[in-house]
Amino acid sequence: MAYQTTLAFSTFGRGSRDITDAVAQAVATSGVRCGLAHVFVQHTSCSLLITENADPDVRHDLETIMRRLAPDGDPAYVHDQEGPDDMSAHVRSMLTATGLTVPVGGGRLLLGTWQGIFLWEHRVAEHQRTVVVTVMGE
Amino acid sequence: MAYQTTLAFSTFGRGSRDITDAVAQAVATSGVRCGLAHVFVQHTSCSLLITENADPDVRHDLETIMRRLAPDGDPAYVHDQEGPDDMSAHVRSMLTATGLTVPVGGGRLLLGTWQGIFLWEHRVAEHQRTVVVTVMGE
Amino acid sequence: MAYQTTLAFSTFGRGSRDITDAVAQAVATSGVRCGLAHVFVQHTSCSLLITENADPDVRHDLETIMRRLAPDGDPAYVHDQEGPDDMSAHVRSMLTATGLTVPVGGGRLLLGTWQGIFLWEHRVAEHQRTVVVTVMGE
Repeated sequence: MAYQTTLAFSTFGRGSRDITDAVAQAVATSGVRCGLAHVFVQHTSCSLLITENADPDVRHDLETIMRRLAPDGDPAYVHDQEGPDDMSAHVRSMLTATGLTVPVGGGRLLLGTWQGIFLWEHRVAEHQRTVVVTVMGE
Repeated sequence: MAYQTTLAFSTFGRGSRDITDAVAQAVATSGVRCGLAHVFVQHTSCSLLITENADPDVRHDLETIMRRLAPDGDPAYVHDQEGPDDMSAHVRSMLTATGLTVPVGGGRLLLGTWQGIFLWEHRVAEHQRTVVVTVMGE
Repeated sequence: MAYQTTLAFSTFGRGSRDITDAVAQAVATSGVRCGLAHVFVQHTSCSLLITENADPDVRHDLETIMRRLAPDGDPAYVHDQEGPDDMSAHVRSMLTATGLTVPVGGGRLLLGTWQGIFLWEHRVAEHQRTVVVTVMGE
């Protein structure tokens, strides 16, 4: 069995938002009891992340580290047509994930207690982002 | 066909251990000949890694780089309830993988000669870790 | 339905090359209309990347950042048998992806307009690289 749906999200500029419920809803709709759920962003300047869903300071600190590893407006960047956050967004995408796969068991996402699925906007401005969810199994 | 099993591992504090044999055993039990094996940790402070299985110095050096990219006790961290290795463990998780997918062919994992699958504990203390393995295919 | 094929690529030393067409061809051959395509390198010193396919400066700048995060010939490396780009290649592999999964819909890869799939050689010398493509679905 293979079920596929496309979700649209507005982002509010740089930062991560929890999309676990939307993915869980796709799994419920699919009817798959045992298998895999795959989540994919069709963009190269935002990404997906599984991290702690309890204390928002975790995601605040991940931003801090990303600002260090992928500085905005780095003078070494050649690609800067869209501004100082253009190339840094591609670096952040490279260092995280364009797609994530989560096991499905008993008809639901087998996430750990403290795991959430986050859509991480790396551009400073608001964007419309498209996420493809595919659920396969029995 | 979809087969799923949950594995439990004790870690010995920070460091990586080879779990390739346990994943290969799940593939053998599944009866899948051609398809995909997916491995997933239900935690946000450990992760999965495919890297060289021959010289343990490789994993020693990966720790060295991670200490640089995700320093313990960084004064910039806001999230530090569980000590200096709490937030750094989340950063290490972000930079590596919560889930890995490996092709299955001829009934076995199609890893390269020098590839091993490692469970990477990022906390300094020992932990019990849960790994979900899902094998799908024909 | 599960289809699997092995692709061989010559690399020209460090740098990334677009392999989207080869993966798309495997999807077309598979006959899968809805499902997932998985791409996997059987090596620990090259990796896979989804990034912008329009401006090659993006990949130039990703190399710049990788040289910083994973320096060649770093004096801290213990593992250096094969030269100054040996260990740095393993670090680059750790920070990117050994495997990628892309959704398949309507019989084709559901990549965004600006997304390409790249094989990224991290060693300075030319190499022969093996890529396993597995397509599953209906």
